[in-house]
Amino acid sequence: MNDLSKVKNIIVKNPLKLDCGKEISNFPLAYETYGELNDNKDNAILVFHALTGDQFASGINPVTKKEGWWAHALGPGKAFDTKKFFVICANVIGGCMGSYGPSTIDAKTNKPIGTNFPVITINDMVNAQYNILDFFKIEKLFAVAGGSMGGMQVLQFVSNFPNKAKVAIPIACTASHSAQNIALNELGRQSIMADINWKNGFYGENEKNPDKGLALARMAAHITYLSKKGLEEKFGRKLQERDDLKFSFDADFQIESYLRHQGSVFVDRFDANSYLYITRAMDYFDLTNKFNGNLSKAFEKSKTKFFVISFTSDWLYPTSENRDIVIALNAIGADVGFIEIESEKGHDSFLLNTPDFLDTIKNYLKSTYINEKRI
Amino acid sequence: MNDLSKVKNIIVKNPLKLDCGKEISNFPLAYETYGELNDNKDNAILVFHALTGDQFASGINPVTKKEGWWAHALGPGKAFDTKKFFVICANVIGGCMGSYGPSTIDAKTNKPIGTNFPVITINDMVNAQYNILDFFKIEKLFAVAGGSMGGMQVLQFVSNFPNKAKVAIPIACTASHSAQNIALNELGRQSIMADINWKNGFYGENEKNPDKGLALARMAAHITYLSKKGLEEKFGRKLQERDDLKFSFDADFQIESYLRHQGSVFVDRFDANSYLYITRAMDYFDLTNKFNGNLSKAFEKSKTKFFVISFTSDWLYPTSENRDIVIALNAIGADVGFIEIESEKGHDSFLLNTPDFLDTIKNYLKSTYINEKRI
Repeated sequence: MNDLSKVKNIIVKNPLKLDCGKEISNFPLAYETYGELNDNKDNAILVFHALTGDQFASGINPVTKKEGWWAHALGPGKAFDTKKFFVICANVIGGCMGSYGPSTIDAKTNKPIGTNFPVITINDMVNAQYNILDFFKIEKLFAVAGGSMGGMQVLQFVSNFPNKAKVAIPIACTASHSAQNIALNELGRQSIMADINWKNGFYGENEKNPDKGLALARMAAHITYLSKKGLEEKFGRKLQERDDLKFSFDADFQIESYLRHQGSVFVDRFDANSYLYITRAMDYFDLTNKFNGNLSKAFEKSKTKFFVISFTSDWLYPTSENRDIVIALNAIGADVGFIEIESEKGHDSFLLNTPDFLDTIKNYLKSTYINEKRI
Repeated sequence: MNDLSKVKNIIVKNPLKLDCGKEISNFPLAYETYGELNDNKDNAILVFHALTGDQFASGINPVTKKEGWWAHALGPGKAFDTKKFFVICANVIGGCMGSYGPSTIDAKTNKPIGTNFPVITINDMVNAQYNILDFFKIEKLFAVAGGSMGGMQVLQFVSNFPNKAKVAIPIACTASHSAQNIALNELGRQSIMADINWKNGFYGENEKNPDKGLALARMAAHITYLSKKGLEEKFGRKLQERDDLKFSFDADFQIESYLRHQGSVFVDRFDANSYLYITRAMDYFDLTNKFNGNLSKAFEKSKTKFFVISFTSDWLYPTSENRDIVIALNAIGADVGFIEIESEKGHDSFLLNTPDFLDTIKNYLKSTYINEKRI
């Protein structure tokens, strides 16, 4: 598994009451920062990562040695311009990049906590990350932003802490996880739990992990991150290093070997139990639940400016679900902008180099920051 | 596995050269018939089944004791009216309901053939089923019809035997399997092959079968058979026999227990190796391949009347792919009708009680049969 010796973290001492009823305290929250916090401490942006992301949004991830998941979007002169902004990103609790999660070693047993880890929610993730503000003595963030599950955390953050961010940018997300998305996540979980090496979550002896199950979960998810048209354009029926069909169950088509590759590299960096816990948190996410189904009420105490972004070919979190957020905000007269970006790259558009998207973020952050200063 | 003692079959004696190069002969082809063949032998309809279907399209399947997959569509007075028509349906080769397939017992070893079975194609399936016409001494079928993989067989049949059917009804299908559909089938295959009980296809000792892998494959496929909106309307975020979330990995949501159920009942009736072989045949299907990418040429020798049917919410075989068939037929001045049926039920619409669809089929078959008689 990951060597986490180079990972920064804070130890959250305050007790945190989880939605499941359990209380946790003195737990690690791993984080990374980009850029410099200014003297007024008014230039901080908290970025939330998606299901398989982590705090290493930019630069080279020191653990995986791969580029950060938003390396093209976050850095000097980029969409999240670290010459202007101080960007913080923390690993969600339940994750496996240093924050408290199922792969954290239990001091009593000297083994991973495994499925003794409590089932957590998006609300729990956000409440844990709120401690970052205290740590940096930031009274108010300039912005919170994130895509997919990161976007759900944006919504939850503003709902929980209505006056702690001037700007909120939820991207390619939803306020309530759909039946189809629950179904797809359940498929991933069943893949992991069907692996004979999963052992009810207490794996790892003799380095045996539920790699096959986790790779399957990743393959399934990866298909959903791309659009039908995008897949057709990128792969079509192209064959993999062969002139003709081989009449076997090897990977004849490029799309097959691509998926197998995606599955196999994923298991090197991600923990199967974390996949279970984080997908569960996503499925449990329904921001309307505490407000009798009225999403507007989730935001009515907030003065935060919203900017909602969706992508045309995203069928996991389609524009219609992003628009529902805008409608709820409009209903309470909130300051809300909305753009649907044209892209064939599906849900993955927010993670890929999508110029219209990156330009939009850059310009929005820059102009809003200047305007906020003027007020 | 299935008790096949009540299954009718013909033994195909003629050698059949498969696309992979191998030749098979003296193999069983299991079939069922509905209605009566008239004296002129001009009222026969050959129905092709989909991936997990079989020859028991109507009535009670004597093996599974469940209703046939088109029980509501096929019978006296129904869309395929057996008071008028003689309907034949055969199990595809590669299947597991009595036709030659990987679960056929090898006389030499007294064990299932397993993955020694050759990789087959839609073309091979159709060529095998052509022997049904000889068996019943039918010179020309009135119609060939089928949905999904059944529709692919319809297209292949007309291309191979341009003067053997007066009418062809391909439903919710494609002339060339898309990258997304290859990806989804590959996911199913990987699920099966990752199961420790698969044993490279030579399973079954001590009744150990790759049930977990096959159930996963079915769960994944089932999600794709329904539409996002259909899933939302049927399940939404409804909880399964509980008042609140349980904060565990049990099935909290109805959609989760529904999927688990779909997976578990499937393994009782279907063979994992058959799933591998049949999905492979679908992925290999590209009718344009032999015709330099020109689909029109696949049909130019035929006088068959076509009627193409798609469904609005089918994202596996969307209207656009069905329309491509119509365009190819129009380009050679073929007699072709086309309808897109409004339905929220996704790809499954062709298997479910979709009144507009059933009425359309019934009226089309009836009027065309009368008109053909007049000529």
